Amino acid sequence: MVNSAEKFMRRALVLAKRGEGKTSPNPAVGCVIVRDGAIVGEGWHRRAGTPHAEVHALRQAGELARNADVYVTLEPCSHYGKTPPCADALVEAGVRRVFVGMVDPNPKVSGRGIQRLQSAGIEVVTGILEAGCRRLNEPFVKHVTTGLPFVILKSAMTMDGKTATATGDSRWITNEKSRHYVHRLRSKVDGIMVGVGTVIADDPQLTARIPSGRDPLRIVVDSSLRIPPDSRILRQESAATTVVATISKELNRIACLQYPGVEILQCNEDDGTVDLRDLLARLGSRGVQSVLIEGGSTLAGRALRAGLIDKFVLFYAPKFLGGADGFGLFSGPASRMMAECRRLKDVTVRRFGDDVMIEAYPEEECLPVS
Amino acid sequence: MVNSAEKFMRRALVLAKRGEGKTSPNPAVGCVIVRDGAIVGEGWHRRAGTPHAEVHALRQAGELARNADVYVTLEPCSHYGKTPPCADALVEAGVRRVFVGMVDPNPKVSGRGIQRLQSAGIEVVTGILEAGCRRLNEPFVKHVTTGLPFVILKSAMTMDGKTATATGDSRWITNEKSRHYVHRLRSKVDGIMVGVGTVIADDPQLTARIPSGRDPLRIVVDSSLRIPPDSRILRQESAATTVVATISKELNRIACLQYPGVEILQCNEDDGTVDLRDLLARLGSRGVQSVLIEGGSTLAGRALRAGLIDKFVLFYAPKFLGGADGFGLFSGPASRMMAECRRLKDVTVRRFGDDVMIEAYPEEECLPVS
Repeated sequence: MVNSAEKFMRRALVLAKRGEGKTSPNPAVGCVIVRDGAIVGEGWHRRAGTPHAEVHALRQAGELARNADVYVTLEPCSHYGKTPPCADALVEAGVRRVFVGMVDPNPKVSGRGIQRLQSAGIEVVTGILEAGCRRLNEPFVKHVTTGLPFVILKSAMTMDGKTATATGDSRWITNEKSRHYVHRLRSKVDGIMVGVGTVIADDPQLTARIPSGRDPLRIVVDSSLRIPPDSRILRQESAATTVVATISKELNRIACLQYPGVEILQCNEDDGTVDLRDLLARLGSRGVQSVLIEGGSTLAGRALRAGLIDKFVLFYAPKFLGGADGFGLFSGPASRMMAECRRLKDVTVRRFGDDVMIEAYPEEECLPVS
Repeated sequence: MVNSAEKFMRRALVLAKRGEGKTSPNPAVGCVIVRDGAIVGEGWHRRAGTPHAEVHALRQAGELARNADVYVTLEPCSHYGKTPPCADALVEAGVRRVFVGMVDPNPKVSGRGIQRLQSAGIEVVTGILEAGCRRLNEPFVKHVTTGLPFVILKSAMTMDGKTATATGDSRWITNEKSRHYVHRLRSKVDGIMVGVGTVIADDPQLTARIPSGRDPLRIVVDSSLRIPPDSRILRQESAATTVVATISKELNRIACLQYPGVEILQCNEDDGTVDLRDLLARLGSRGVQSVLIEGGSTLAGRALRAGLIDKFVLFYAPKFLGGADGFGLFSGPASRMMAECRRLKDVTVRRFGDDVMIEAYPEEECLPVS
């Protein structure tokens, strides 16, 4: 029983992943309808404003949905949005049972879809492969529960932990396969964030250079507006905006940055620099669910020590800088004792040729804004 | 044909690995005898002074060895050592063909076993799974061809590449599973080498603390004899010797280190410190085939830049020191440009719980003594 429930939920997760990174601000959702042990309907949410996963699956199942079992990765909605409530559609179709991966994390609607189903006499089982269902929509879950974006730190290092030489050279550390994966990662997030030092050193474009990849919002943390006005991130043509987050009020510097698609965002101050938590809250309040921090070590160190990073994506390339100088992953003060380290959990490893990618989560989850 | 040859050679490799780390100064060797597509005899070399792999396999095959095919990971010996030549035994048994993984790397005998077989009319095929056969005995191959030990650098880092905090604290970085693996690794090498800084900071025992693990020779690189006379590495009871490699001639310091099982080894000087290549040559000339460098970053950096390391075994533990200070894998000057990095090849990844172990080889093989 449990095994077959997990089997069908796993299939629903596979379907949901087809929409990953394309459904924002909605979560990715997958749905499977099963009758007499066989799948009779499948669906996934493709894009915000289009039908939900359950609707696709019900359409495919047709009359076979009556008395069927439904597996859906996220609690069916109970409210009218751009589409009618899925809970109602399931009731009307006459399904027998609904297996739910995770309850809707939105505190305003959480549990209402399940109540709607139960009050119509439908049996509801929750928490099937819940961890996987949460992971699938971790940006959505973080944003809807805290108002903050889900923050991913991506970095590339040599195998002796160096992200750049003492002269600031960092091109290239990883191989083409890894860099292609990073472009895919960029196309899935709402925003990419870098420190102004990275803009000055590397003049990056920060676009998702893959076919049909959407360009995310670009955010430069630049407390004193040191960004060179001819930076590519300011002047390139892209559908996406570049936000320069600052605490500087210097009008002549601000005037130099008046380009189309460039926005100067005044943030709160924290110890003479942009308050990163305030910046993230401002981004979250305008609907940014996920931010990828791509460098450099100053920004990464400040974000880490402020407890703002939800996930780490670390590439280790098969080479050594071979000495003490050069830059590491994090600038700033380190722990004084090994036992006081920041610990990671849920480590996964993946290879791109001879590059090794390690993904991990902080052992202590990032706290919401206090 | 090739596929079945590889299949049986793979089996011979599996057998050979059972002797890995136990056969020194001999290489580990495995042998399979096949008649009509079925294995009729198997053997592996267990310990120096005992019968070779071929002898075990021939004994098991008995009369079935006649006209059989033999798969052996290393060229059969042609000389009388502690046991009679295996090539002669194969000739006498009347085998039909011999498949050889790798030719004997010892320049004094290389090819002679094959000649002996061929002159008796036996067909010989060489180079089956040669890379795997070389890897199995990489210390033996390095030592017999260059006179130098095969040098493995083992290090443990946080995932931001730190091997110790700024205060020198490094206990513990990795988990128990990783540390157990390191003890197994120690039991397979002939010597363990550390810098005196590691002895002063950590006072390590450097013994192979696993059941039936033999303790390797311990080598401390201590150019000016700063080692504390009460260090555990000097005073513990172990069957293995501790070598203190130095260029210091200060008699009062030397006198302080007169313990049983402790040897002061005078080495050539290189830029005010022990010439590591000279030290390795001295170790190699007394039969040390493999050395595991375990720390610290000064010794690792000097060995790396001198091109003396043959293999890297790097543990990445799921934690961050989280800042710029602390020690990395290598001290000393680093490459100025990313394109000038020392490159690694043949990367393999293995997990010990949430610790990630990466093994790799230098892209340019270590050169023999000039």
